[in-house]
Amino acid sequence: MSSDNPFGADNQQERPDIEWWIVGFTDGEGCFSISVVRNMTCRLGWQVQHEFAVTQAAPSRPALELLAEFFQCGAIIENRRRDNHRETLMRFSVKRRKDLLETVIPFFECHPLLTAKREDFMRFRHVLQMMQHGLHLQNEGLHAIAGITEQMNRRGRSRYLESSEAIRQPSRPRPLG
Amino acid sequence: MSSDNPFGADNQQERPDIEWWIVGFTDGEGCFSISVVRNMTCRLGWQVQHEFAVTQAAPSRPALELLAEFFQCGAIIENRRRDNHRETLMRFSVKRRKDLLETVIPFFECHPLLTAKREDFMRFRHVLQMMQHGLHLQNEGLHAIAGITEQMNRRGRSRYLESSEAIRQPSRPRPLG
Repeated sequence: MSSDNPFGADNQQERPDIEWWIVGFTDGEGCFSISVVRNMTCRLGWQVQHEFAVTQAAPSRPALELLAEFFQCGAIIENRRRDNHRETLMRFSVKRRKDLLETVIPFFECHPLLTAKREDFMRFRHVLQMMQHGLHLQNEGLHAIAGITEQMNRRGRSRYLESSEAIRQPSRPRPLG
Repeated sequence: MSSDNPFGADNQQERPDIEWWIVGFTDGEGCFSISVVRNMTCRLGWQVQHEFAVTQAAPSRPALELLAEFFQCGAIIENRRRDNHRETLMRFSVKRRKDLLETVIPFFECHPLLTAKREDFMRFRHVLQMMQHGLHLQNEGLHAIAGITEQMNRRGRSRYLESSEAIRQPSRPRPLG
């Protein structure tokens, strides 16, 4: 049905403003996450991982392909877990720091999220900016980043901050101002 | 921070195209639902309920207020249940048939959803159109509507279709063509 294709030439339907559709979709289903995980190959024994992801059940994979096409980075991967309805979950995922700093973050700066998820985005951006300055390679910076992760995505205590290495550090980070 | 307000006059940020933000947000978090529930005050002893809803944790209530302001109908109500993180959930809800037929459905006809949720919207619209013709007041129409609900929102068997009244009906409805 050509009239069902939002990208088709059909004067009954407006052509999608894909930028703001992406903002709304991200407000609904997007996730900006930072994790501090054990990795003994890193200088401090901990690695800071960063990801922008949008998850959908498999039948909505074309919507994730729109994201991949728009951002021209990231990948669509199959999640190991399934949802409550046992459908396979797919995830559009951008992990590469350069892609986040040069593509994803500038997009959401120009097109701000309208839900409370915006606070997560601001913290995410703050951590990526800290990493640009190499602060994650120093104990104090890593401590501060771990503190920020505890405020993101309504998560609990950071494993890094619970560890003995972190407890040995003198100063607790201040929350993101 | 004025630059953080997407509705402010700030030339670093684009003004939201609220229509397509709503489509994206609905693709992420919206729900079009039809239920056939016991109600002995109805002619057939069953009532067809219809709702368009978008649910968010309480801190994102302003995003739901945007929806209410845009559609100029519906209500923002507190859900009884809380989410996994024990935050109160809020729901923007439109239940009134006239509002669905004259406002919500025409909007999503002009601005089509881009995920598989669009199939739910098409079934939802089909049921509302059947109700406009009074088909839910006849056994056969009610049967057909209950059959459609089983295909929506990845739900299971309709309680109506499991009931003895429905089993007494001669014909099984055909799925939505």
